[in-house]
Amino acid sequence: MHKGFALWFTGLSGSGKSTLSERIYQRLVAAGAKVELLDGDEVRTHLSKGLGFSKEDRDTNVRRIGFVAELLAKHGVIAITAAISPYIETRAAVRERIENFVEIFMDCPIAVLAERDVKGLYKKALAGEIPHFTGVSDPYEPPVAPDVRVDSSTEDIAVSEERVWTLLKDRGLIPLSW
Amino acid sequence: MHKGFALWFTGLSGSGKSTLSERIYQRLVAAGAKVELLDGDEVRTHLSKGLGFSKEDRDTNVRRIGFVAELLAKHGVIAITAAISPYIETRAAVRERIENFVEIFMDCPIAVLAERDVKGLYKKALAGEIPHFTGVSDPYEPPVAPDVRVDSSTEDIAVSEERVWTLLKDRGLIPLSW
Repeated sequence: MHKGFALWFTGLSGSGKSTLSERIYQRLVAAGAKVELLDGDEVRTHLSKGLGFSKEDRDTNVRRIGFVAELLAKHGVIAITAAISPYIETRAAVRERIENFVEIFMDCPIAVLAERDVKGLYKKALAGEIPHFTGVSDPYEPPVAPDVRVDSSTEDIAVSEERVWTLLKDRGLIPLSW
Repeated sequence: MHKGFALWFTGLSGSGKSTLSERIYQRLVAAGAKVELLDGDEVRTHLSKGLGFSKEDRDTNVRRIGFVAELLAKHGVIAITAAISPYIETRAAVRERIENFVEIFMDCPIAVLAERDVKGLYKKALAGEIPHFTGVSDPYEPPVAPDVRVDSSTEDIAVSEERVWTLLKDRGLIPLSW
């Protein structure tokens, strides 16, 4: 079968974390894996209600997701997370606690994100109407050495999916036969 | 092997939740089970930092523990929880979401708890020095139909342990050979 591990997506809002993580999740489910998708919004409802967007609150949110991912991975479950997780130090602290940790950096240029602006948030943020918007009015610290770097503005999502899938095999985290 | 389930201890401070849950946990570990002990204090650190002891905050704490227990149990892990969890409605809401849910009610008379008073908390609470102390200055709603009821003031802990262990077998949650 497969190992327990955390597949940790990080990147700005709109960079494709949810879309790619959902595809990997569905593929793992189809393969019969024990897998849990901890999406940013779901987690904010169940684990982090009441937290805001200050550095401290964001860190608490990310550490909490990390705690749950750690428990799952420890017992052989695959935990996929897709929260922005903007700070290097906090991601490093989580990585430290999880034996098998794979970091996927969704690295889409902000100009493209502002152009797409699916939820209309970038327009508002760039107009100064959202005080703590990551990448505009709040910091995002990109990973220095992610396990996979995906630029969703240039790469087809099927290709990104395949790269992540191949990495999981190369690392021995999922069977080669999958 | 075993099933995924939640073993949910409830009861006042000092009633023996930690002691009995720790014994069951160790016995499950020794048997080779996938098991996680979510103790009240550990959970307050990792999941619920910043929450207080109002009804709303207690409920949030219990629901969060329930969310994590649900994720673990769903993937075949045994989640043991040992938080006071004073409210019937909140425990029922958690039970609702978890397929295999076993409730252990630690039902020790408050006079005995105040007499033992291991942490010196009952003395303070009875003197009016702790505003939200469950059973003294804050409500505790006992389960109407727990799966096991343990009175730690009269029952030897080895007997309580055996009763819980037997119930888990009777329910088909752990193998009869354990």
